[in-house]
Amino acid sequence: MLLKRIAKLRRFLKEEKVDAVLISNFYNVLYLTGFKTLTTDEREAFAVVTQQTVYLLTDARYVSDESQNSLYAIKLVGPGRNMLFHLAEIIKKESVKAIVFEAEDMTFLEYQRLQKSLKAVSLIPKNHLLMAFREIKDQDEIEKIHEASRVADRCLAAIAKTIRVGQTEKEIAFRLEFWLKKNGYETAFAPIVAADGNASVPHYDTRLGYGIIKDSSVILIDFGAKVNDYLSDMTRMVYGQKVAPAVLKDHRLLQTIQEEAVNKVAAVKNWGEIDSFCRQALQKEQIVPYSHSTGHGVGLEIHELPKVYQTLPDRKNNGQIVTIEPGIYYPGRYGLRIEDTLAIVGEKAQRLTAFPKAPLAFS
Amino acid sequence: MLLKRIAKLRRFLKEEKVDAVLISNFYNVLYLTGFKTLTTDEREAFAVVTQQTVYLLTDARYVSDESQNSLYAIKLVGPGRNMLFHLAEIIKKESVKAIVFEAEDMTFLEYQRLQKSLKAVSLIPKNHLLMAFREIKDQDEIEKIHEASRVADRCLAAIAKTIRVGQTEKEIAFRLEFWLKKNGYETAFAPIVAADGNASVPHYDTRLGYGIIKDSSVILIDFGAKVNDYLSDMTRMVYGQKVAPAVLKDHRLLQTIQEEAVNKVAAVKNWGEIDSFCRQALQKEQIVPYSHSTGHGVGLEIHELPKVYQTLPDRKNNGQIVTIEPGIYYPGRYGLRIEDTLAIVGEKAQRLTAFPKAPLAFS
Repeated sequence: MLLKRIAKLRRFLKEEKVDAVLISNFYNVLYLTGFKTLTTDEREAFAVVTQQTVYLLTDARYVSDESQNSLYAIKLVGPGRNMLFHLAEIIKKESVKAIVFEAEDMTFLEYQRLQKSLKAVSLIPKNHLLMAFREIKDQDEIEKIHEASRVADRCLAAIAKTIRVGQTEKEIAFRLEFWLKKNGYETAFAPIVAADGNASVPHYDTRLGYGIIKDSSVILIDFGAKVNDYLSDMTRMVYGQKVAPAVLKDHRLLQTIQEEAVNKVAAVKNWGEIDSFCRQALQKEQIVPYSHSTGHGVGLEIHELPKVYQTLPDRKNNGQIVTIEPGIYYPGRYGLRIEDTLAIVGEKAQRLTAFPKAPLAFS
Repeated sequence: MLLKRIAKLRRFLKEEKVDAVLISNFYNVLYLTGFKTLTTDEREAFAVVTQQTVYLLTDARYVSDESQNSLYAIKLVGPGRNMLFHLAEIIKKESVKAIVFEAEDMTFLEYQRLQKSLKAVSLIPKNHLLMAFREIKDQDEIEKIHEASRVADRCLAAIAKTIRVGQTEKEIAFRLEFWLKKNGYETAFAPIVAADGNASVPHYDTRLGYGIIKDSSVILIDFGAKVNDYLSDMTRMVYGQKVAPAVLKDHRLLQTIQEEAVNKVAAVKNWGEIDSFCRQALQKEQIVPYSHSTGHGVGLEIHELPKVYQTLPDRKNNGQIVTIEPGIYYPGRYGLRIEDTLAIVGEKAQRLTAFPKAPLAFS
């Protein structure tokens, strides 16, 4: 599996007539080598791939010596032997003339330092090279995301029935997180539990809010599980016994549109068509379309390619994992969103998140 | 407080004869404006500071309209009006000729796009501009980090006494996290609980491990609390009833060195001196010095300036928050580390983490 990904990258190098690629992004290093460090943003590991070798540059906090396993050769970063030192050595050893770097990940400062210390080498920026690889999931990845979706289904089933009037949004979010961790999983991202007016803010941050559940409450729950490094993403609505009938009418409309959008996937070529479909369906009902995109890829990260958005007609392809999540928002009053994680199998969308979408009432 | 920071940034602009600065880093936007978004790494907000105005560029998921509060003017990012569009407008309106950007944060791709769309403006890279501001904490920040340290003290006191033979490292880490969240706080980072051989890996990832506590175990606990966006960092050692006497001898030696290092802070000018002191003290006892630095700044992020390391003689200054954390590691067998978060008040180090450092036994 890792070997297939490396082989694909090597074919790219050959086609582009480049000798090496420097991978700096945490998730891309993980995707290619299976190796990961404690933090995602502190540059604790780099991978360098040539036609001969995969090098992993990291430090003694993670590996104890410069060993070589079946997949990669370790170069230990330490005092006097930083990443640039090892890179220069690899370039010399393998006669590298041109090296591709990740333009969307490498910082300007890092680029300047590379330029300064590797004067004889062409540095070639490439945008979203590995992100494009990662857009199409293999069977193993789809199975992991399916498992993360099943875990989220079980988690919501367990927690939804414990919601009561008087609880805080934070408390409910915490119980989702607690359930996942107690069962040996992680959250895909900080769970959003947003009640009433707060639910009308699409990226409401529950950690900063003070919402309390009432018997008329509209509760939006947007969360996911992380299982074996892969994520799921799902939004469901839960309502108090005394919720206004108009809200439930909105729910039925939104649920219909979301389900039609999922069914429509089989017939489209581009994701922009799905985005337009949802917006037009809302406009037909005199509802102002939402400010966010209709969906996004999911994988090792919560927002991957493709993007489901009118202005970016990303193509539909077998092996994509995509969310579809239209919403209806009345600023300051309430908001609804219904979201599934889907796998594209052939032409069709297969739902991975299976939790029922009908209005769910708490007691 | 925010006004003071902005005034300081404006003095910098004046001195450097630059009209504006573009802030892209999540923590730097938060530091300057108090505004934060749901994710730290998805570019959901930018700040632009000129002599006249602080602009906040973000989208409708966070704010509902282009209002102006006492601190900043909001520019809504949306379809057809991306960050570059607003930046171009600001540049035109305020006749900006030169704009500073954060070289350690801006990606190469973002830089290319800026260059392309802002042809008439000089783009000036600056390294760690705001990181240098953030190195010196004000009274309010020190108080928040002190509070985060007190919370971590209480958390460890509660959890240490629940450790038992047969528990997993993961279970203990989970209880630390659970205690913090139940009490309304967050973790500063994923807690490290490492037993025996695992404790000899300085950046051991408890989430990936399967260590189980024995009655002879050496348990390293490295964790911190996040309170009002600010972090604390502390490492303590807990031992089984049947721990080897040699381990406790190592503990006494390490504790003495760590405490001497804290006391020595008053007498040094550069942090490199503290790093050298700890390494030499270990070498005197024929112990191989650790592979990591002796400490680091802490604030909104877990690793800030200064760095306590020989080869980087960062100066000691009033208002710094620094960890001191020497360790002793026997690869594959066991490891020890003792770490406090300290505030530099005048010349001296004041301990913020107050949990006792003596060997702690569990039953």
